[in-house]
Amino acid sequence: MTQMTDAKNNIITKEMEFVAKEENIAVEKIRKWVAKGFVVIPKNIHRNTKPVGIGDNLKTKVNVNLGTSTDCIDIDMEIRKAIISEEYGADAIMDLSTGGELPEIRKQILKNTTLPVGTVPMYEIGIESKNKYGRVIDFDEDIIFNTIERQAKEGVDFMTLHCGITKHTIDTLNNDDRIMGVVSRGGAYITAYIMHHQKENPLYSQFDYLLEMLKEHDVTLSLGDGMRPGCLCDHTDRPQIQELIVLGELVDRCREAGVQVMVEGPGHVPLNNVETNMKIQKTLCKNAPFYVLGPLPTDLAMGYDHITSAIGGALAAYSGANFLCYVTPAEHVRLMNEDDVREGLIASKIAAQVADVAKGNKQAWAKEKEMAIARKNHDWEKQFELSIDSDKPKKMREELPPKEEDACSVCGEYCALLMVEEAGKR
Amino acid sequence: MTQMTDAKNNIITKEMEFVAKEENIAVEKIRKWVAKGFVVIPKNIHRNTKPVGIGDNLKTKVNVNLGTSTDCIDIDMEIRKAIISEEYGADAIMDLSTGGELPEIRKQILKNTTLPVGTVPMYEIGIESKNKYGRVIDFDEDIIFNTIERQAKEGVDFMTLHCGITKHTIDTLNNDDRIMGVVSRGGAYITAYIMHHQKENPLYSQFDYLLEMLKEHDVTLSLGDGMRPGCLCDHTDRPQIQELIVLGELVDRCREAGVQVMVEGPGHVPLNNVETNMKIQKTLCKNAPFYVLGPLPTDLAMGYDHITSAIGGALAAYSGANFLCYVTPAEHVRLMNEDDVREGLIASKIAAQVADVAKGNKQAWAKEKEMAIARKNHDWEKQFELSIDSDKPKKMREELPPKEEDACSVCGEYCALLMVEEAGKR
Repeated sequence: MTQMTDAKNNIITKEMEFVAKEENIAVEKIRKWVAKGFVVIPKNIHRNTKPVGIGDNLKTKVNVNLGTSTDCIDIDMEIRKAIISEEYGADAIMDLSTGGELPEIRKQILKNTTLPVGTVPMYEIGIESKNKYGRVIDFDEDIIFNTIERQAKEGVDFMTLHCGITKHTIDTLNNDDRIMGVVSRGGAYITAYIMHHQKENPLYSQFDYLLEMLKEHDVTLSLGDGMRPGCLCDHTDRPQIQELIVLGELVDRCREAGVQVMVEGPGHVPLNNVETNMKIQKTLCKNAPFYVLGPLPTDLAMGYDHITSAIGGALAAYSGANFLCYVTPAEHVRLMNEDDVREGLIASKIAAQVADVAKGNKQAWAKEKEMAIARKNHDWEKQFELSIDSDKPKKMREELPPKEEDACSVCGEYCALLMVEEAGKR
Repeated sequence: MTQMTDAKNNIITKEMEFVAKEENIAVEKIRKWVAKGFVVIPKNIHRNTKPVGIGDNLKTKVNVNLGTSTDCIDIDMEIRKAIISEEYGADAIMDLSTGGELPEIRKQILKNTTLPVGTVPMYEIGIESKNKYGRVIDFDEDIIFNTIERQAKEGVDFMTLHCGITKHTIDTLNNDDRIMGVVSRGGAYITAYIMHHQKENPLYSQFDYLLEMLKEHDVTLSLGDGMRPGCLCDHTDRPQIQELIVLGELVDRCREAGVQVMVEGPGHVPLNNVETNMKIQKTLCKNAPFYVLGPLPTDLAMGYDHITSAIGGALAAYSGANFLCYVTPAEHVRLMNEDDVREGLIASKIAAQVADVAKGNKQAWAKEKEMAIARKNHDWEKQFELSIDSDKPKKMREELPPKEEDACSVCGEYCALLMVEEAGKR
């Protein structure tokens, strides 16, 4: 049984109880939302994952992508990235490895974190196809479903699968004048497969079979957005929305089957269209949890896409997104290293807190109030403790310690707070 | 004569022409906006400043704060900060020095940049008062106006002056239950002065005299928001709005007198109230250019306030702010060093580009399109050239060069773009 089928049967699982406690929300509400599909708790039955709730009315969650590439295979580094992610407060990890022994890397990551772990099985499918038939797009249904089943049995908690790319979607793509074409890697495999073999996407044509498999292990399906725009100029265009309509239909089928499902979204979106993108997803997909990559509201900040993404992510989460996929400074440049992971994660956590405050989340506001009081009291230790990253500001203050202990080295003896406090005493 | 009086007299100055060219807008429109006070061009008559237009319908501008503190006096470092600012595309600089020989530091900064330079004269006023009478709040009208006049004669292009803090404003402050009190340093001097001496703010009571002085040198007045909130919990409260009403009245008086004026704004604002803050300023101050510090939509990101500020700044500029004061990673921790200046400036420039794109600025969109095409063409040199900071991504790519020259080290041979291009060719 899945969290969703249990919820439909009025069963409260220990995972729902855990989420209810974390969010400070009555567990009966959580159960109802899971039953309706408004909230997912990605947790494979084979794995002892820390339960995390994703969906409306819950705190915004943050995902870290990691994994090898063909150019850079260092399994120890990937494990360290997983450990850093948990240490700095990620809510989930996706292993996007494409280089080296994928099953072994995945095993190590699953072993070295308690967080929900997601994958994009198309990567492994492509590599298997290449090994077996010569090209990544030569996969057949056997390779596809065997790979998905193997990963499900290994304990993968959620999987991105590009089920919404159909022949029709690609017609819509070809009828439009995108600059960047398809930038989703998994989406590109499927697109190239359909274009080359003139066959329908097996993940779409065999969707019921896929659902049976995911249900058996309670793998949460993350419906990939293969048609997401790859640059600002391509934002919110017909191929993107065409695929989203299909994704909405598939959400219905998941919910009927008792399979937990969330929907992925863009990508590259100008700030004035972020809200529109969130609302159209929430309507077309009937309030399914929304998992967004970025969005990036400019393409001009290479080396700083964690900042760009924090801008877009904050507004996205405020406008309806529930799950932010972090973007690191290395995005669009090279594979991320451990520093990039930490920086990307912190930027994404800032965006999540900004959104939760803006949505009136009580836990988020309580922390803001504690920080204000700590700052008023010149309580530096408490300020560091409340900071999303405690280490960096602590180290920075030590680099240039103020002469007056209470103050900081910006204002020194001319501290505004201390001055008005003093005048008020007279 | 000031830019504004010239504009009112139908005179097109060479500064207006420069701005018109930079913005690709008809100079007659610029003249009209300057005449009405919707646009300012901060440029002291004694200085050969690069003209920069600030106001509605123009690109969002970015200011860099720098300057010594009592704890850290290194004039060479401040000069280097000024040079970095210009190099990385700042539109203006404020010298906020409070330590060392202020006139000498200011002279050096004015000499080492072509950008408009602003100051907060209250800092020097406070120090003069302390030297002469023992305390920073012991200033009199002589010290105030002599300092302002001296700085105007030296060529300072714009000055932040907290003219809107009155006895009435402070009554409103005392009738509310703020956590953080007054966090504006200049504002704190005035507040403490009024509270201690039970006298009216001379910058308010002698406002006409101040205007004469500013007009003589065409110093743009930046009306300081001494009552800006110092934490999220204090946002958009009565003292802030009370002061803003006074600032609106003072804007009218500036415009009547032919003095260029902009208005400063918060500070710490939850994301859901950013737009409200921009709109209330634009209405109460009759579309005066709006200069915002941040705003920070969370207080939990110590050491990363450049990111927090980019989130708030992007939405602020999209919603009406015209001029973003950068915030560095060192904000709330210690005085900024050169790296902080660069990082803060880049974050702020990202926010400005995000806002300009969202507002449909044609120059901003043209760059986005160029970047999309460069990326589609795997033209890495062009991508770096178009980046807000070219050096960092270039260096990052060199750290982990991809095996396939066209691709990047994330996807390597599995590049989505290349794959679909290939399939499309068949």
